[in-house]
Amino acid sequence: PPGKKVLIVYAHQEPKSLNGSLKSIAVEELSKQGCSVTVSDLYAMQFEPRATRNDIVGCLHNSEEFNYGVEAWEAYKRGCLSSDLIEEQKKVQEADLLIFQFPLYWFSMPAIMKGWMDRVLVQGFAHDFPNCYESGLLKNKLALFSFTTGGTREMYAKGGISGDIRYLLWPMQHGIMHFCGVKVLAPHICFAPEYVSEERRKEMLDAWAQRLKTLWKEEPINCSAEWYFK
Amino acid sequence: PPGKKVLIVYAHQEPKSLNGSLKSIAVEELSKQGCSVTVSDLYAMQFEPRATRNDIVGCLHNSEEFNYGVEAWEAYKRGCLSSDLIEEQKKVQEADLLIFQFPLYWFSMPAIMKGWMDRVLVQGFAHDFPNCYESGLLKNKLALFSFTTGGTREMYAKGGISGDIRYLLWPMQHGIMHFCGVKVLAPHICFAPEYVSEERRKEMLDAWAQRLKTLWKEEPINCSAEWYFK
Repeated sequence: PPGKKVLIVYAHQEPKSLNGSLKSIAVEELSKQGCSVTVSDLYAMQFEPRATRNDIVGCLHNSEEFNYGVEAWEAYKRGCLSSDLIEEQKKVQEADLLIFQFPLYWFSMPAIMKGWMDRVLVQGFAHDFPNCYESGLLKNKLALFSFTTGGTREMYAKGGISGDIRYLLWPMQHGIMHFCGVKVLAPHICFAPEYVSEERRKEMLDAWAQRLKTLWKEEPINCSAEWYFK
Repeated sequence: PPGKKVLIVYAHQEPKSLNGSLKSIAVEELSKQGCSVTVSDLYAMQFEPRATRNDIVGCLHNSEEFNYGVEAWEAYKRGCLSSDLIEEQKKVQEADLLIFQFPLYWFSMPAIMKGWMDRVLVQGFAHDFPNCYESGLLKNKLALFSFTTGGTREMYAKGGISGDIRYLLWPMQHGIMHFCGVKVLAPHICFAPEYVSEERRKEMLDAWAQRLKTLWKEEPINCSAEWYFK
């Protein structure tokens, strides 16, 4: 609805890919609804995935023994994180909804997106023990994982060779988003688009556009172990 | 035992860290046994985690629409992968045992190590459908995930706030290593080393050294859904 802010964190190298189209459809449909949409196009930005000393501007809290988590936390409090991180944190802070759009790589997100999680969701900003899970610092936000797979739906069925697709959602949805207090909408999964017809791929794009029309009426999933492993 | 080859893929920024010590202990103990040990120190190598066009030397298979998986596969067959990947693949090819040593970041490995998985374990080299799982191309190798956590053992218990630690091992052990045909030894986990005494940390190091003495006698886990979710 008008006024809602959406951040799409997008990780594909090729604009013409299905992931690229899914991203563009989301920008278009959500803009049409009056939402303000921002895209972090990680490959285009050459986003840095490595968590290093470069993320802290100026002096370290403890230069004798580098502890990334502690240093990033301290730097966040002092406003001394590198500018790319401050920029991404601003986008997250303003967003009502985070959409992660990516091809599944090895039962997870591509490294460039994992780096976004590792570096942006700093202690003090996204969580601050005991402020995690229900009291995570990003509560009142929503997240949605939208991705394509190499394997088929059958391979990712319960008892299938790759196991229930929900098994691999646990670290991403529960371990990252829920940990930060973000409520999670049902994932949007396009199975094996490389092995289906052009017509079927078109249907996949249409289904995403359709879903987006009523997205704001959706209830978050119950992000507990039961949802994933029952 | 003498003659065995071990590759340690190591992802920590600080040599003085517990992860750094765990890595050094493995090098020392396994060398003492007569193993030949190689370390890929990812941060020191400034290992590139991003899967991009730069991984393919020379012409693309399809320059109209960039598909990383297809391009890397084709480049592997033509011997046209970038030299850093060829180098890592050689190390993997020669190894009998892969040890992954890292601090858990967001229920998974740090992005720099995920990038190693994304870029090194190319189709044609590590798997080649239907050559996956039991017939993956890296069969007859062993892998072991050795990591430290921020959360305590209680948080990672079944029914604990972060869920059974085994839940988050599924994508790494089953989705990556088992998919490539690699047999998986029980993980080695140091829970919350930042919140324990210096004495307890010393015990953690001793326990790892002890385990390594009889490592080659261990049987792999049964890497099926039951092990993770039963």
